[in-house]
Amino acid sequence: MLTPTDIIRLDGGTIVLLDQTRLPQARVERRCGTVPELIDAIRVLAIRGAPALGVAGAMGVSLAAEQAPSAPAAFRRAVTADAAQIAAARPTAVNLAVGVRHALEAAAGQWDDPPAARAALAAAARAFHADEVRRCEQIGVHGAALFGEGARICTICNAGALATGGYGTALGVIRSVHAAGRLDGVIVPETRPLLQGARLTAWELGQDGIPHRVVPDGAVAGLFARGAIDGVVVGADRIAANGDTANKVGTYALAVLAHHHGVPFHVAAPWTTIDLETPDGAAIPIEERGRDELGDTVPSGSPVWNPAFDVTPAALIDSIITESGCMRAPFDLRA
Amino acid sequence: MLTPTDIIRLDGGTIVLLDQTRLPQARVERRCGTVPELIDAIRVLAIRGAPALGVAGAMGVSLAAEQAPSAPAAFRRAVTADAAQIAAARPTAVNLAVGVRHALEAAAGQWDDPPAARAALAAAARAFHADEVRRCEQIGVHGAALFGEGARICTICNAGALATGGYGTALGVIRSVHAAGRLDGVIVPETRPLLQGARLTAWELGQDGIPHRVVPDGAVAGLFARGAIDGVVVGADRIAANGDTANKVGTYALAVLAHHHGVPFHVAAPWTTIDLETPDGAAIPIEERGRDELGDTVPSGSPVWNPAFDVTPAALIDSIITESGCMRAPFDLRA
Repeated sequence: MLTPTDIIRLDGGTIVLLDQTRLPQARVERRCGTVPELIDAIRVLAIRGAPALGVAGAMGVSLAAEQAPSAPAAFRRAVTADAAQIAAARPTAVNLAVGVRHALEAAAGQWDDPPAARAALAAAARAFHADEVRRCEQIGVHGAALFGEGARICTICNAGALATGGYGTALGVIRSVHAAGRLDGVIVPETRPLLQGARLTAWELGQDGIPHRVVPDGAVAGLFARGAIDGVVVGADRIAANGDTANKVGTYALAVLAHHHGVPFHVAAPWTTIDLETPDGAAIPIEERGRDELGDTVPSGSPVWNPAFDVTPAALIDSIITESGCMRAPFDLRA
Repeated sequence: MLTPTDIIRLDGGTIVLLDQTRLPQARVERRCGTVPELIDAIRVLAIRGAPALGVAGAMGVSLAAEQAPSAPAAFRRAVTADAAQIAAARPTAVNLAVGVRHALEAAAGQWDDPPAARAALAAAARAFHADEVRRCEQIGVHGAALFGEGARICTICNAGALATGGYGTALGVIRSVHAAGRLDGVIVPETRPLLQGARLTAWELGQDGIPHRVVPDGAVAGLFARGAIDGVVVGADRIAANGDTANKVGTYALAVLAHHHGVPFHVAAPWTTIDLETPDGAAIPIEERGRDELGDTVPSGSPVWNPAFDVTPAALIDSIITESGCMRAPFDLRA
C-alpha cells in the first residue's frame, strides 16, 4: 500500500517525493531542497498527474519560503518570484497554478512576518494535499455508482494515487467499484511514449490486488470491437468551462472509440482541475515534449511530433465526476 | 536505395535477408541455410510483412529442396513436410501459405527428378518475388489516383519495400503520390509494440527522401481532429472474401478515427493477400505474441494481451487497391 505521504510530503525544509521515473523497477525517493530542484523533478515527470502537480505547487511555495531571505520585503519578493516559476513549470495542468495560488493565499496578510508565513504555507500545503485525497475519495464514491456488476473498465495513463497524491481520480473510481465487489478487471493501455499505464497504473493496481491487463495502445480498439469494455474512465489535466477536457495524449482516441461502440466515457477529476477561465478546449495550451521520449528507435533524420496531451470535446463525454457528484452532458460548468 | 534482392534473395542454397529486427541502427544480413533457420527468422520478424512472407515461403520451399535427400520419394516427402512447417510459421498472413503453394505447384510433375525440381523451385521463387514487386508498382499507380495535391497521408506499421520484397503496398501508393509531386508528407505512427513505423517506415522514407513525421500511436487522433490527415492507406495481412481486413494491430483504431472524421480509409494489397476461402474477418486467425515484446516496463505480476493484428470491417474501408485496380465499397471479392 502506498500512503499519500509516500507519494509527496514536506519534510522540514524539503519536498520528498517518490520518483515516478524509476517505477516499477525501483521505489526510490527524490529530495527537492531548492525550487530549481523541484522544477526539475516536475519537468522530468518524477512527479506528474494534475492533482499531484497541484500539491507539488502548494508545497513548492512552502519550499520557496524556507529558502527565501528573512527580511520581509525580500522574503515576499523571492517567494512570489519562485511561485511564478513553479506555476509555469508545465503548461497544461491548471492544478499546478491552482496549488501555487492556494498556498499564496494562505500567506496573505503574513508577508511582514516571514516565520509566521512559513508556518502558514507549510500548513496550507499539507492541508491542500489532504483535501485533494479526500476529494478523490468522494470522486470514487460518486463514480462507482456509474458501473454495474462485473464491470470491465478501461482507463489511460495513470490517474491513480501517484497522479493525485493519494487514492486517485479515474483509479479512485475503479478502486471504489472494486471495493464494492463489482469490478471484473481493468484494461490498462501502455500509454506511449512514457508508458505510465504499463509502469505506474499496472504497478498501483498490482499493489492493491486489483485485476488488470496491460495492452498496447493500438490494441484497445480490438477489445471495444469484441464488446470487452463496459466503460472508460479517465483523469483530466484541465477541464474547460464547456466540458472540453485535456488529458494524456491518446485519451481523445479512446473517446472516439467509446462513442463508435456505444460505450460510456467518463472524466474523473476534482474541481481543482476545472478551469472556468478557459472557455473551451481550443484555449488549453498543449505541452509538446522532446523526441528523446520516443527512444532511440526513430532514425535520427526523421522528425517527430510528441504532444503530451490531447483534447476530448465535451460532446464525447458522458459524465464528469467530481467530488460534488456526477455531471451529465451537456455541461455548463459555470452554472 | 533498397533493391528487392537487398531485402530477400536466394543465394545458392541459402536465403539471405535483411534482418529487420536490427534496423534502423544496423543494416545486417541474416543467412538462413536450413528450414528451421528460416522459420526462426520468420518468427522473430527478421522478415515480416504479408507479401514478403509470401516470398520467404516460396524461397523456403526452394531451400527445403536444396537440403532434401536426393532419392525421389524421400525428396518429395522431405520437401512437402518442410513446406507445411514453413506455411504454419505464422498464422495470420495468408501470403505465407500462398507463396509455399505457388512454389510447390512449380515442382509438380518433377518430383521424380530432384535436380530438375530444385531448379524449378528456385526459378519459381525468384519469379514470385519479381512478380510481387511488379504487383506493388501497379498498386502504386492505381492508389496514387485517389490522392490530390498536397496530400497528407497516414499509414501504420510498415507496408513498404521491407514488407513486400520491394516498393511496398501502402508505401507503394505513397511513393507514387510522391513521384507525382502531390505528397505533402506522411504521418507515421510508431506502431507499438515493435515500432515498425518508427523503425522501418521512417527509415525507408528517409532513405528515399520522402517527407514524414513519426508520432506516438495515441497522438494520431489529435491530427485527425485538427484536419491534418487527408487519407489513410494501410497494408493487409489477409483480406477476407467480404472485404474485412486483418492488418497490424492499431489499424482498426485508425479506421474508426478516419470514419469519425470523414477521412477516406484505403487498404493496399496484392491479390495474393486476398483469401476467398475466408468468408469474413471473424474467420481470420489472429496471432497473439508474447509479453516480452512489451519490454521490461510492465510489472512482472501484471498480465498482458498482445495481439499482432486486428480486423477492420469492410464497412469502414473506402477502397481496396490491388494490382488490378481500385475496388470501392461494398466489396464482393468473389465476383
